[in-house]
Amino acid sequence: VDRVDRSEKTTSIEGVSIMPLNVFADERGAVLHMMRNNHPWFVRFGEVYFSEVKPGVIKAWKRHREMTQHFAVPWGEIRLGVFDDRPESSTKGALETLILGRPDNYCLVRIPPRLWYGFQGKASHPSLLANFTDLPHDPEESENLDWHDPSIPFAW
Amino acid sequence: VDRVDRSEKTTSIEGVSIMPLNVFADERGAVLHMMRNNHPWFVRFGEVYFSEVKPGVIKAWKRHREMTQHFAVPWGEIRLGVFDDRPESSTKGALETLILGRPDNYCLVRIPPRLWYGFQGKASHPSLLANFTDLPHDPEESENLDWHDPSIPFAW
Repeated sequence: VDRVDRSEKTTSIEGVSIMPLNVFADERGAVLHMMRNNHPWFVRFGEVYFSEVKPGVIKAWKRHREMTQHFAVPWGEIRLGVFDDRPESSTKGALETLILGRPDNYCLVRIPPRLWYGFQGKASHPSLLANFTDLPHDPEESENLDWHDPSIPFAW
Repeated sequence: VDRVDRSEKTTSIEGVSIMPLNVFADERGAVLHMMRNNHPWFVRFGEVYFSEVKPGVIKAWKRHREMTQHFAVPWGEIRLGVFDDRPESSTKGALETLILGRPDNYCLVRIPPRLWYGFQGKASHPSLLANFTDLPHDPEESENLDWHDPSIPFAW
């Protein structure tokens, strides 16, 4: 049993945090925690779904007005990009890059509303991003930009 | 967009049900639904976690006294076995075998408390079982038997 420190780590963007997740190694296949109702970040359940990301592919950019995302990558590896253009933010203009996945970066990332985010498959096979949200999907509540939109200075 | 009929299908075991899940095909990688707060099976959130199952491996048997499981297999394929030895059940003695996974069997399976269940990896690579429960994990609340225990007449 590979229990990890549950301490929260901050990032270069206000409100974006990382917390390691427990992985219970087993020769038959590991058990991987994601979220539970006594987790310090749990507020309410909205939806849990998966986004498959093929090797090299970029899925970006997306922004939610109200929904908080909680990402984990239980299969493969992805690069997550986050951009802060919130007018009142202490980190306005900041870009953050995080590598999520196994075996070295199995953790939960919280992305509050009103931040742009996107991700890219980094494994040689498809990767799986799991998302636990506090609201169910509502197309009226989110916006998209092309992955190469010039308003987000991120070098994929 | 590949929208599917949300109708619930029964099985040979009382209380074990299957419901197809939406898969949104995308050349960059599919989006796969699992559970949301307006799903007819949603009662409350306990925990969501993953169990990796290596090819051919059997993880069995387990039984919960109080917890309801909701399984989906977003990566790979597994064979799920369920055994009913509930004394009062109308299907006491029944065995059920279900194949879960992609691309042909991406669905949600609900397993109520007090049934024995186990699963086996059927893909040529590790498979990933996702479990959405109505209670967080509590070792006091579950029991285990060896996969080959003679009290469960299941031919793995």
